[in-house]
Amino acid sequence: MGNTFGRAFRITTWGESHGGGVGVVIDGCPPRIPICVEEVQLELDRRRPGQSDLTTPRQEGDRVQILSGVFEGVTLGTPVSMMVWNQDARPESYAPFRDTYRPSHADYTYEAKYGIRNWMGGGRASARETIGRVAASVLARKWLHIHWGVEIVAWVERVHDLRAQVDPALVTRDAVESNLVRCPDARAAELMAERIRLVKDQGDSVGGVIGVVARGVPAGLGEPVFDKLEADLAKALMSLPAVKGVEIGSGFEGTLLRGSEHNDPFEIRDGKVRTSKNHSGGVQGGISNGEDIVLRVAFKPTSTIFKVQDTVTSQGETVQLEAQGRHDPCVLPRAVPIVEAMVALVLADHAMRQRAQNAN
Amino acid sequence: MGNTFGRAFRITTWGESHGGGVGVVIDGCPPRIPICVEEVQLELDRRRPGQSDLTTPRQEGDRVQILSGVFEGVTLGTPVSMMVWNQDARPESYAPFRDTYRPSHADYTYEAKYGIRNWMGGGRASARETIGRVAASVLARKWLHIHWGVEIVAWVERVHDLRAQVDPALVTRDAVESNLVRCPDARAAELMAERIRLVKDQGDSVGGVIGVVARGVPAGLGEPVFDKLEADLAKALMSLPAVKGVEIGSGFEGTLLRGSEHNDPFEIRDGKVRTSKNHSGGVQGGISNGEDIVLRVAFKPTSTIFKVQDTVTSQGETVQLEAQGRHDPCVLPRAVPIVEAMVALVLADHAMRQRAQNAN
Amino acid sequence: MGNTFGRAFRITTWGESHGGGVGVVIDGCPPRIPICVEEVQLELDRRRPGQSDLTTPRQEGDRVQILSGVFEGVTLGTPVSMMVWNQDARPESYAPFRDTYRPSHADYTYEAKYGIRNWMGGGRASARETIGRVAASVLARKWLHIHWGVEIVAWVERVHDLRAQVDPALVTRDAVESNLVRCPDARAAELMAERIRLVKDQGDSVGGVIGVVARGVPAGLGEPVFDKLEADLAKALMSLPAVKGVEIGSGFEGTLLRGSEHNDPFEIRDGKVRTSKNHSGGVQGGISNGEDIVLRVAFKPTSTIFKVQDTVTSQGETVQLEAQGRHDPCVLPRAVPIVEAMVALVLADHAMRQRAQNAN
Amino acid sequence: MGNTFGRAFRITTWGESHGGGVGVVIDGCPPRIPICVEEVQLELDRRRPGQSDLTTPRQEGDRVQILSGVFEGVTLGTPVSMMVWNQDARPESYAPFRDTYRPSHADYTYEAKYGIRNWMGGGRASARETIGRVAASVLARKWLHIHWGVEIVAWVERVHDLRAQVDPALVTRDAVESNLVRCPDARAAELMAERIRLVKDQGDSVGGVIGVVARGVPAGLGEPVFDKLEADLAKALMSLPAVKGVEIGSGFEGTLLRGSEHNDPFEIRDGKVRTSKNHSGGVQGGISNGEDIVLRVAFKPTSTIFKVQDTVTSQGETVQLEAQGRHDPCVLPRAVPIVEAMVALVLADHAMRQRAQNAN
Repeated sequence: MGNTFGRAFRITTWGESHGGGVGVVIDGCPPRIPICVEEVQLELDRRRPGQSDLTTPRQEGDRVQILSGVFEGVTLGTPVSMMVWNQDARPESYAPFRDTYRPSHADYTYEAKYGIRNWMGGGRASARETIGRVAASVLARKWLHIHWGVEIVAWVERVHDLRAQVDPALVTRDAVESNLVRCPDARAAELMAERIRLVKDQGDSVGGVIGVVARGVPAGLGEPVFDKLEADLAKALMSLPAVKGVEIGSGFEGTLLRGSEHNDPFEIRDGKVRTSKNHSGGVQGGISNGEDIVLRVAFKPTSTIFKVQDTVTSQGETVQLEAQGRHDPCVLPRAVPIVEAMVALVLADHAMRQRAQNAN
Repeated sequence: MGNTFGRAFRITTWGESHGGGVGVVIDGCPPRIPICVEEVQLELDRRRPGQSDLTTPRQEGDRVQILSGVFEGVTLGTPVSMMVWNQDARPESYAPFRDTYRPSHADYTYEAKYGIRNWMGGGRASARETIGRVAASVLARKWLHIHWGVEIVAWVERVHDLRAQVDPALVTRDAVESNLVRCPDARAAELMAERIRLVKDQGDSVGGVIGVVARGVPAGLGEPVFDKLEADLAKALMSLPAVKGVEIGSGFEGTLLRGSEHNDPFEIRDGKVRTSKNHSGGVQGGISNGEDIVLRVAFKPTSTIFKVQDTVTSQGETVQLEAQGRHDPCVLPRAVPIVEAMVALVLADHAMRQRAQNAN
Repeated sequence: MGNTFGRAFRITTWGESHGGGVGVVIDGCPPRIPICVEEVQLELDRRRPGQSDLTTPRQEGDRVQILSGVFEGVTLGTPVSMMVWNQDARPESYAPFRDTYRPSHADYTYEAKYGIRNWMGGGRASARETIGRVAASVLARKWLHIHWGVEIVAWVERVHDLRAQVDPALVTRDAVESNLVRCPDARAAELMAERIRLVKDQGDSVGGVIGVVARGVPAGLGEPVFDKLEADLAKALMSLPAVKGVEIGSGFEGTLLRGSEHNDPFEIRDGKVRTSKNHSGGVQGGISNGEDIVLRVAFKPTSTIFKVQDTVTSQGETVQLEAQGRHDPCVLPRAVPIVEAMVALVLADHAMRQRAQNAN
Repeated sequence: MGNTFGRAFRITTWGESHGGGVGVVIDGCPPRIPICVEEVQLELDRRRPGQSDLTTPRQEGDRVQILSGVFEGVTLGTPVSMMVWNQDARPESYAPFRDTYRPSHADYTYEAKYGIRNWMGGGRASARETIGRVAASVLARKWLHIHWGVEIVAWVERVHDLRAQVDPALVTRDAVESNLVRCPDARAAELMAERIRLVKDQGDSVGGVIGVVARGVPAGLGEPVFDKLEADLAKALMSLPAVKGVEIGSGFEGTLLRGSEHNDPFEIRDGKVRTSKNHSGGVQGGISNGEDIVLRVAFKPTSTIFKVQDTVTSQGETVQLEAQGRHDPCVLPRAVPIVEAMVALVLADHAMRQRAQNAN
């Protein structure tokens, strides 16, 4: 009952990781947006497994189909339904987990909630569910770009303890895509790749931090007091698998400053009200102020590791478990387009909500 | 258009900081919960200004009235409407800000969004808006307590760079309430109080981190994939004034661990499926697992400071501004009950949502 | 949990008929709409009891207060909270019904649902609840009028078997308000008034049909496939106390025509696409087509009658009941402004929803 | 933006009549309901075109696929996605309507709303869209049946002016399915079939009234004041193509009675609170009272007729139009399962909503 996101630009995702397929229905997509299936495929390819030796070797073609809502190359204003069939499923590799709860996975909690779970894979808790989010975000981004030239760029900012130097105001998608880690700081990227390969060889995993910026967002988006822009962004990002923290602007570090240091003075720049710095991260009082929106997202280390772990079965037996299957030692490189997708979905939703009451 | 929170236990707050009053309507409150106005008042008194020299000297009686939905001492199942009249308003102290945007406040963004704002105070961006949230949370907490014995305790974990030592598993409300800072580590509390008085004397402000735990939450709450429990908690907390970051369980720090260190092994304890540690923070895959739910929330330093700041007016003039009025040098002590309130609202909402589909 | 209506222009009503008060919170009201309390009061006075000998003699001052969201004579874009205190309550007149279910009232069903009810009056099932709807509709109507010159007029079309002749294209509010029955056909109005007085004298009651038209509604409002304009209008009207049927355009009678008779041919009139007749009632495929929107609403005879009736108690005893208190022998005259209110709320909501996706 | 229905049992339909396919996603379906694809297909076959000479000869296999949410024969509690591919589309038969607005169809209004429409068929306004509703309703019905033995039966009560005699308390699905018209009054059914064939031969169409009853619904369902059970039923039914009116219980006819005739006395029957008659139609104050829920729905005559009609083009030319393609001369026989579907969806949704707050 929580498979719909957004209020005005609204997506509903469906599908488990194994069996049938996964997909999304977008309701509220404005009419007459030019779109073709290749544009959607391009984004899906960025999140696809099997891209490099840094990610899971699982090969999923993930060819997306547009089933409705697009006619003669543009959207109709009616629901856009898109799907990807599942393939390359190897349920047999999940057989050992039929009755065994994998530590820090969702096996136990799904069973506690529903009294049943699809043990052939991660079910809805699989990152495969994000395919629908990414597919839908392509329309959101296109619309945001057409109307305001909004650009959204995410990057790997930290892997384990290896931190990159990235300027949110300047970072480009090209820089992000220039290496397999999706870290625009080339030197850091090399170290990160090394670290990922190391823990992979050890059957272990690492996490890290992804940064994301949205540039060109007009002032006025966000719906206080509960649907503040940063609140919906936090929800969107925290709803991604493996995320344990979200911060905007100065975030946790900003609490070490005094008010006199933290406040962003206003000034007139190019005839516009601007701030001279951006500790606020582009939002004040829950509403965008026209500055760059900057967030950071913490991803825990992948739960699936190839070491022996203690756990229990649904019958209450204590057992030891050693994972099989194919998994990412570090989800961050593939999570970059997913983080961008969530930011795009929130911004499009809020831009449309803003129009409802405030179109003149 | 964002003044409603929750899906099954749903609150709508209204009211600006000056003029009329502030209030809340709760829809979806279960019938036959015993409640009296004093219980609500008690919580409001915890968030009230003027409690000590650490908070704003503004004196607001904040006497709550229950206008509907309660009959002969219990809830009716119909909407519960509660309100507090505004008083002690001194609009004249806001006159200088009529056309001037206070740095890192919401003056500019409200005006950008709505083309108008109530300049006599903070309007909806004022922390006064949270009165309705706290009042509503009293019913949520009572219901959670009656059904599962859920306990929610928040505390000040850090002020500026002064960190307390607090064990989420053991911290009690009494310990929190034992000092003005609401920090259960008495030694740290003293230092924090000192720091707050220092920056107050300097006309400056500080922020910090609040921790919160919910104990006794049953496994199974949370609605993947978008309304994961941690996603709704993040949204709820990020919707509070001055919050810049939220993390659950291991949070940002957890990204420095490897998967083999981070994973929480399952074990059988007292005949139940439990985890031997709690990096997950009580949720796995967006669903509670029966362990303590633990979060940390970053509050930026208060925006209102009593130092000269650069800013601009709505006419585009560059001006200098010096705040007047009465404000908290540090919002954290008063934010403790508000953080608890938001956690209670999310848990009650999800507990009811869980019943909708899964009542047997 | 059903006390909120609308998606973009969203109202939440609260309050029982006795105790405290009744009110409404509007979320999503556009900013900068001029409004004063007298405009709201004017509409409330139309639905107020005690207007004439045709209605209940209950005297309720029903003075409305605006508690938030309005500043210096215009809306702020933030929630508008309005309320009316309850007065002239005579709970003692309800004492006999404490344990007795009044036939065709909601006593039994509220108790079945909630396990409790406020027996001092009709609770939420009282028509008094509609005060909030009417108050909120004043803002909706004003906004619709400012933007498109939309006019909404309802009238009493039938009382019992006495039918009026009214042309929806031409009927005016002045004509409706020219008599106590609110029937613009003066001759029929007289007969209706006579009939109402007759049944009142007999301790009985009558129902009838209210017609309503919205003129000036632009083409394009309505959100297929579930939130079709007629679907949301039907819901809005069926949510009123005592309503048992709703029809749009040709309605039930239209089923006696053939397609060749029923279809509305298109033509160009004044340079616009128009239909030469209006069996469609202003909607086609769930979307307004620019023609007058015309509906009819069936109100059952008032349940409260002053005759002896068979019923049972909550203890399962069979008893006889004779109503006391003060009630309308016919709700239609007072229901006219309430019907207009619901139509206004739906149209404003859909006009804003239409803007979200389709603002250019 | 109106393609989702329900709050707790929530369906989202997608798809146009031509191109790709049509489908539905159900969110909020309880886990562990046994379901197989054949059960869904059975209901779809009842609404399928080409069943007899009374319906359109269009042959659509309409084989449904379950894409997610079902595992080892039962639901998982996660979204159930179902779809049917479009086939037998003959877009060429729609070419004449590319720029021409068919009278009383949604061509003009879709274009007014979205600035574009899929002219190859009826798009979302096609009755084909209801496939998703019917598919989803199978799960709703099954769940309602398992928990309370709820039975929902609809029938053709009137075609044009030919009225059947049907007792809602006794009518069975077998009786409904015993003839092509789906009218359980065999004599009336014959006359109706004759009338339908007659107008078909004349290139014309007829409408009529469908009755529907839900038996076994427990007391307590419905969420006043806006989401009253009858309000949501009215919305659900009015959202169906061609519906112009909905009534519950005594409906429009009931307005000809006096209160003393209309009121339903309570009595104790089989140890339960019951009413001795059912003018209320099973709801009082918006909440089910345990009696049969009885509604009637008016369907206008099919808009597509094979006679010359006056209309205009999108360029503003006046033209004459003669329909081509294959269409039902009377939609009622095929609408029977769709009406049942909508009632099932509303009841399941409300049953789950009731549990959220009131589970003990």
